[in-house]
Amino acid sequence: MKALKERIITDGVAIGTEIVKVDSFLNHQIDVELLDEIGREFASRFEGCGITKILTVEASGIAIACMAARNMGNIPVLFAKKTSPSTMTEEFYGAEVKSFTKGTTSVVRVSKKYLNKNDKVLILDDFLAHGEAAIGMAELVGQAGAELAGVGAVIEKQFQGGGKRLREKGYRVESLAVIESISDGKINFLY
Amino acid sequence: MKALKERIITDGVAIGTEIVKVDSFLNHQIDVELLDEIGREFASRFEGCGITKILTVEASGIAIACMAARNMGNIPVLFAKKTSPSTMTEEFYGAEVKSFTKGTTSVVRVSKKYLNKNDKVLILDDFLAHGEAAIGMAELVGQAGAELAGVGAVIEKQFQGGGKRLREKGYRVESLAVIESISDGKINFLY
Repeated sequence: MKALKERIITDGVAIGTEIVKVDSFLNHQIDVELLDEIGREFASRFEGCGITKILTVEASGIAIACMAARNMGNIPVLFAKKTSPSTMTEEFYGAEVKSFTKGTTSVVRVSKKYLNKNDKVLILDDFLAHGEAAIGMAELVGQAGAELAGVGAVIEKQFQGGGKRLREKGYRVESLAVIESISDGKINFLY
Repeated sequence: MKALKERIITDGVAIGTEIVKVDSFLNHQIDVELLDEIGREFASRFEGCGITKILTVEASGIAIACMAARNMGNIPVLFAKKTSPSTMTEEFYGAEVKSFTKGTTSVVRVSKKYLNKNDKVLILDDFLAHGEAAIGMAELVGQAGAELAGVGAVIEKQFQGGGKRLREKGYRVESLAVIESISDGKINFLY
């Protein structure tokens, strides 16, 4: 996606060989116009798939999922929670997710009420790095007996292998920008 | 806001005398169509105020802020973070926020890069309960030397006093639904 790639080139900040910071438009400050375009792109790629629900994980995925849902006939968004709030009293599906950036493991949860075997689910997130979050969310979809339509990532860091892992599991993966490597402060794109 | 109040009556769940669960459309599963209407309502209430940025806090506030921003000429959304991610390397403004629901205190942070004295800020959130989150965010606005245009809440729980606290500080507060009390599983609205 041209506008996204250009924006990463202009505003993304490479840190070391692993991290691309896109805090200025994606995961701290949010450019809603760009996100609407991103949402339209996901809608177009998954058109005709009969998707009934978008699943994401708090926090950065929420804006992306909402903008995509708007462009997919206002289907519901469900965001998995990383902590168990005192108001989450009913039964839930849960899966462990390791964060390589933070060096922590957390459990992502969704209430059983909002995911069931009639759902056809699109998983969306800001980054696809090692694939841990997407695999955890796919596990939630599996626990619910729902169907997984695919995984969409705004930015895939190909060199961290998550895309390969997901595709090897047979999942359809759509990434709007794919980064091959980061070196000497430069972000090298596959596309 | 009629559609919102009706939705709370239909789908909101009263727990004890303090908590209203709106997980089915606002803070776990998200009804983007209703949120777009909520966004339009905030846009209309703060029309002509010259707002340059919407400030919210992760996670539930993000969807609301994005939908409002779309209806306010695509102004940027900035969401305060509750944890300090390893990618937040630059300087930030920070304020302590107590959560009565979770019984914890956290620090909300925004990068100094994205809030400055030329900003006129609208603070948005899902709930206005004791007012802690809004007061914390107003503190961030103050630290940046920016101007606070007002605070918008989707649901105000009047009996927890946050709205009163904010209004006493001289802030303009706009709540789309106001709950007076919760008793015997019934939600009693002021409007």
